[in-house]
Amino acid sequence: MKAIGADKNFNLDEGNLFYEFDTETPQPKQYELLVRVKTISVNPVDTKIRKTPVEHAPRILGYDGVGIVEAVGPDVSHFNVGDEVYYSGSPKYQGSNQVLQLVDERLVAKKPKNISNVEAASLPLTGLTAYETLFDAFKISFNPEENKGKSILIINGAGGVGSIATQIAKHYGLNVITTASREETINWSKDMGADIVLNHKNDLAEEFKKYEISEVDYIFCTFDTDMYYEKMIELVKPRGTIVTIVAFNNKQDLNLLKPKSITFTHEFMSARPIHETEDMQIHRDYLTDITEKIEAGIYKPTVTEVIEGLTVDHLYEAHVKLENQGMIGKLVIKL
Amino acid sequence: MKAIGADKNFNLDEGNLFYEFDTETPQPKQYELLVRVKTISVNPVDTKIRKTPVEHAPRILGYDGVGIVEAVGPDVSHFNVGDEVYYSGSPKYQGSNQVLQLVDERLVAKKPKNISNVEAASLPLTGLTAYETLFDAFKISFNPEENKGKSILIINGAGGVGSIATQIAKHYGLNVITTASREETINWSKDMGADIVLNHKNDLAEEFKKYEISEVDYIFCTFDTDMYYEKMIELVKPRGTIVTIVAFNNKQDLNLLKPKSITFTHEFMSARPIHETEDMQIHRDYLTDITEKIEAGIYKPTVTEVIEGLTVDHLYEAHVKLENQGMIGKLVIKL
Repeated sequence: MKAIGADKNFNLDEGNLFYEFDTETPQPKQYELLVRVKTISVNPVDTKIRKTPVEHAPRILGYDGVGIVEAVGPDVSHFNVGDEVYYSGSPKYQGSNQVLQLVDERLVAKKPKNISNVEAASLPLTGLTAYETLFDAFKISFNPEENKGKSILIINGAGGVGSIATQIAKHYGLNVITTASREETINWSKDMGADIVLNHKNDLAEEFKKYEISEVDYIFCTFDTDMYYEKMIELVKPRGTIVTIVAFNNKQDLNLLKPKSITFTHEFMSARPIHETEDMQIHRDYLTDITEKIEAGIYKPTVTEVIEGLTVDHLYEAHVKLENQGMIGKLVIKL
Repeated sequence: MKAIGADKNFNLDEGNLFYEFDTETPQPKQYELLVRVKTISVNPVDTKIRKTPVEHAPRILGYDGVGIVEAVGPDVSHFNVGDEVYYSGSPKYQGSNQVLQLVDERLVAKKPKNISNVEAASLPLTGLTAYETLFDAFKISFNPEENKGKSILIINGAGGVGSIATQIAKHYGLNVITTASREETINWSKDMGADIVLNHKNDLAEEFKKYEISEVDYIFCTFDTDMYYEKMIELVKPRGTIVTIVAFNNKQDLNLLKPKSITFTHEFMSARPIHETEDMQIHRDYLTDITEKIEAGIYKPTVTEVIEGLTVDHLYEAHVKLENQGMIGKLVIKL
């Protein structure tokens, strides 16, 4: 079985330390599915993990996977051999940069029938991150009517997570304000459903004034949390909530949250799979909702770049693109 | 009209800078009630505000007040002259250390009929802080059945807020674990309804092991947040929530919240009144619920010390007691 991995952490300027190798095909146990991977996407988190020490070499990176169930463990109840599935998986397993991957069925859903494997690969990690942010952190209602009148600011609306979060927030009834700065990212974000796209080259408080936006209920930061920490506190409502998915470089003053009694969540999609929480099947539930919304034409995939063939060179090329930032939507690799 | 105030901020070792003075009786406007104050309580926040610069001298401190409505503003709809009421008020008004006080009716409820003015004065600030923490920050259900199986750790269970928070959390279905260290505080906290009282002189992770407690859903810190910051992150469940009411002395590493995707709220009961949020009448709703629960014999007042007579000396004495910490429950002054 083919896989691509690396024996040590590396920066891109050290050259391409990815290599291809064969591994034994594993037998799925308990709740595990063995999936024949057809497409993957590369996420910013892959580039970050690539730089962290390798515990068990070779390490196979990759969250998002789309493929066909090849075998099932004895306790699997939701899937059969031959099912087309998609998932973002768990850091407790080797990643999706391989031909045959084990994944826990509680983290998997049926792939939407009306989109390609390439399109489907753009959805799981970003979709799950957005669902957890909206429903578990902001605790918005699953009934869009109850969210009417509430507003969210999504910083960096055209990125992978921002693109799907905009669609989900809009569908579930929120007023969605995003940020972008280039013409193409502004247009893309509007296309995703943003009601207003602010220019993040300008001071966001000034942009709020310009568009006559008052403080928002929710702020979702998908870019440089240190830079936006104080600004977000300024722009959120009293008793509002701020969520970030971007780690800080510096310590911060948590007392700044006090005058408005603000809530802060560090969203991390892998928390449930890593800790194998009792409710980790919520990833399957969320992905299933995404499948239903895609099939109903409510959400659309966010893929903007496709690379043909999962090779050592192509994987390195994808990491270069991700690290250069400015990526709109998602980059997918076809196996 | 008699009031006690101070013209400048001061530390207790500078002597007693409180003084008594007469003020004009104000006319209630809009939603304002004019209340003849019968009892007040002194809270730790009073001692903290006493040390902050005075903007408009003399400054009259005091949150909690219990009294009789003497006059009502033209838009008041929930109260009549003669009603017995209690409240924690708003920093936008002068405080309760006076004989006649203005307070916004959206922050006021009828005093429970079955307890004295002294007992009632122990409830508003601590009760509102606990309600906001439980229902707005932890977002527990108002249906106790739905909270069954969830657990909360309240650090410093015998303090003013800890004492009432324990009762409320217990009534609403949570398993309540508190901390204390002296025999009298341990007994008091058990009397408030704590299922388990840990000794906070010991490492709390060791205490969790000793009592076979696994990670908890919610942690409410009412004492030294800097000291407990990392420990709380260790003891809370993945996707759990930590709330503090105690300001930090140091900046903190927010990345520590990421591995378990933890939510952190800086609870501040005055956020709604200060910002006059659209939903500030929730203070009346919460206080009304407290009244109902007191009248039903479900909650009990937490007063442990009563001082007779609101004088300059008595107010100073109360501040000394509060600053010495180790206070069990609440200190009340009878006018």
